[in-house]
Amino acid sequence: MNVNPHLAAMPAGYLFSEVARRVALFREAHPQKQLLKLGIGDVTLPLPACAAAAFSKAALEMATPEGFRGYPPEGGYPFLIDAILARDYAPLGVSFGRDEVFVSDGAKTDAAALQELFAPDCRIAVTDPVYPVYVDANAMAGRLGAWADGRWGRLEYLPCRAENGFVPPLPGRRADVIYLCYPNNPTGTTLTAEQLKPFVDYARENDALIIYDAAYRAYISRPGVPRSIYELEGARDVAVECCSFSKSAGFTGVRCAYTVIPEGVTGTDGPGRRVSLNRLWRRRLGSKSNGVSYPVQRAAEAAYSDEGWRQAREGVAYYMQNAGILLRELRSAGCEVYGGVDAPYLWMRTPRGMGSWAFFDFLLERAGVVGTPGAGFGPGGEGYFRLTAFHARQVAAEAAARIRGALG
Amino acid sequence: MNVNPHLAAMPAGYLFSEVARRVALFREAHPQKQLLKLGIGDVTLPLPACAAAAFSKAALEMATPEGFRGYPPEGGYPFLIDAILARDYAPLGVSFGRDEVFVSDGAKTDAAALQELFAPDCRIAVTDPVYPVYVDANAMAGRLGAWADGRWGRLEYLPCRAENGFVPPLPGRRADVIYLCYPNNPTGTTLTAEQLKPFVDYARENDALIIYDAAYRAYISRPGVPRSIYELEGARDVAVECCSFSKSAGFTGVRCAYTVIPEGVTGTDGPGRRVSLNRLWRRRLGSKSNGVSYPVQRAAEAAYSDEGWRQAREGVAYYMQNAGILLRELRSAGCEVYGGVDAPYLWMRTPRGMGSWAFFDFLLERAGVVGTPGAGFGPGGEGYFRLTAFHARQVAAEAAARIRGALG
Repeated sequence: MNVNPHLAAMPAGYLFSEVARRVALFREAHPQKQLLKLGIGDVTLPLPACAAAAFSKAALEMATPEGFRGYPPEGGYPFLIDAILARDYAPLGVSFGRDEVFVSDGAKTDAAALQELFAPDCRIAVTDPVYPVYVDANAMAGRLGAWADGRWGRLEYLPCRAENGFVPPLPGRRADVIYLCYPNNPTGTTLTAEQLKPFVDYARENDALIIYDAAYRAYISRPGVPRSIYELEGARDVAVECCSFSKSAGFTGVRCAYTVIPEGVTGTDGPGRRVSLNRLWRRRLGSKSNGVSYPVQRAAEAAYSDEGWRQAREGVAYYMQNAGILLRELRSAGCEVYGGVDAPYLWMRTPRGMGSWAFFDFLLERAGVVGTPGAGFGPGGEGYFRLTAFHARQVAAEAAARIRGALG
Repeated sequence: MNVNPHLAAMPAGYLFSEVARRVALFREAHPQKQLLKLGIGDVTLPLPACAAAAFSKAALEMATPEGFRGYPPEGGYPFLIDAILARDYAPLGVSFGRDEVFVSDGAKTDAAALQELFAPDCRIAVTDPVYPVYVDANAMAGRLGAWADGRWGRLEYLPCRAENGFVPPLPGRRADVIYLCYPNNPTGTTLTAEQLKPFVDYARENDALIIYDAAYRAYISRPGVPRSIYELEGARDVAVECCSFSKSAGFTGVRCAYTVIPEGVTGTDGPGRRVSLNRLWRRRLGSKSNGVSYPVQRAAEAAYSDEGWRQAREGVAYYMQNAGILLRELRSAGCEVYGGVDAPYLWMRTPRGMGSWAFFDFLLERAGVVGTPGAGFGPGGEGYFRLTAFHARQVAAEAAARIRGALG
């Protein structure tokens, strides 16, 4: 049999596999050295007690005749969807029907699968640097052309660098789909409503779709930064939004997220009719998924209770204090650093013109600090380096001191 | 934007949505009537106590600094993979490395996603009738041509009817991929090793791949019926096997399954090299999934403990006693019924030449019994009707009596 040639031709491993490989080699060579890990964007604090208790209780319910539940509803349990609408959208003045929200096992899963709704020849645009999942999923589907010199031939890169304040330009060619992630992974930067508005207008004028990844919305602290693209007028006709409990409530190991597909979002089918993306997604889910575990959805619901909300916010605040320490210390050491205010990521210009993988090796060797090379997020990430705030308090100060020492 | 034309052109809803629609209409018209549901293949007994306890305990662990776990390993936790290998394969004399097993959130998810490994023009063969997921997933990817007169133009149907003892013929044209599900959903029939062997030989001789869905293996009672395709010599070079805890341990609401992709299974890439499907699957997972929750994997592990295994087997035995009652009663009522011995499904010839949707309506109206029309599983299911054994004991006898009454 012939395999999917696009999948077979994918460039080597996912970014973090390569990072893990280099770290493993280093550990082998220096088994006694204590590494500080600011690489993978994975939370480190325990699950909020309130969510764990609900998770645990629901698991036990499943062993009782009254509490047992089989296949979950494909789009999620109404109790969780209602909590999502009440906590994440109502305060923004945004409302949706239950049928417009789809609970899933991860924003990564959804962000990767949404491209199944697009025609094979849709033209894709992404910010550069970018969370690799959007690109990989489209590349595996053959939508991005050939990979050469670190770029996909048929992908439009919207550069985000210090020079443009990390505000992506609108697509130059006509794009059918634009992926936007704000607060941004990896740069940690955000867009104001005024900076985001042109994308909504572009999508409306050009019959384009925006996939808006808001997985880090809980980290926004500054006013004027939208928590949801639906705060912008007109977005509900052109945008799909992916959200997650992973970073807002420490759910990376629990696996729960949701995607909003408003009824108004449509595209053109083969015979030229307008069809609802919501309907297509539901059709797809019916054939490809059996939904999310009841106990997991109870855990997510509990993260929205007053107690759970408070516990989750404490976690976010803890990480953002780490980010604050890193930001202050690195800047006082003369580093050029972005992000870290509305997002748990810091985006550092590599010093002395080092390439980002060279700086990765430099920090690993000289400081025992693991970060993520910017180039791993796309060509526009070259010359930058990502540090996460997901670690214990003492790691932030220690990492900053070690980086300062290595550079000094 | 243009949407995926193949997805947009899919025939209306998943089978069970249509069943649910007709049942809802009936309920509205006859709110007082008690319905007996033998339709959807969803377990009804509570989760084994042992699995629920482990599930619950692991959920609480997640709230402690020592017990917290973030992103799970992409292929599954070694503790669960080792349990799978020890319980499901070692007793059959079959061994695999940990890297050959991938834990997932459902056999449906995997069965639907595996087609992402195939070239767009791969020729697919399925038994007919068939579990609709294999067909739908390939159709949405555009691999099956046009849908007309209840058939996909570019899909090879391998008919399984009473006339051939429900043993599918080998593909007539050359097939690149053959989906086999044994014990079979929907017919409840099995293949002996001798009947399965020609498919393994065909795959080896024709460079074809077998996707073997063994989700119901726990229901096999007769000797000589393989629990795994890997019991057959040569299968590990040509077969991928999907298994699930859904039906073996009552996990439909927990969401855990696994797929085995042996290292020896290969296909040809664009430039004509042989590539490992295991490697392609891992590359895909790295970009598209974040694995399965730790507490869920602990629950699955517990289902393999001595206590959990006993509890899970009790559940299987309970359902199979239901199947035995239905089989005996329906046969004594003169019905022609298959399956129900090594699988929790009975496959009944519709009486008096009724079409399968007509028989569905007939049973709903006259007996208040909900089953699944055979035609929903493909053209070869016309003239048949599926009844499940997943219900309380009294339902089996009552349903059989009502069916007998309606026919009498």
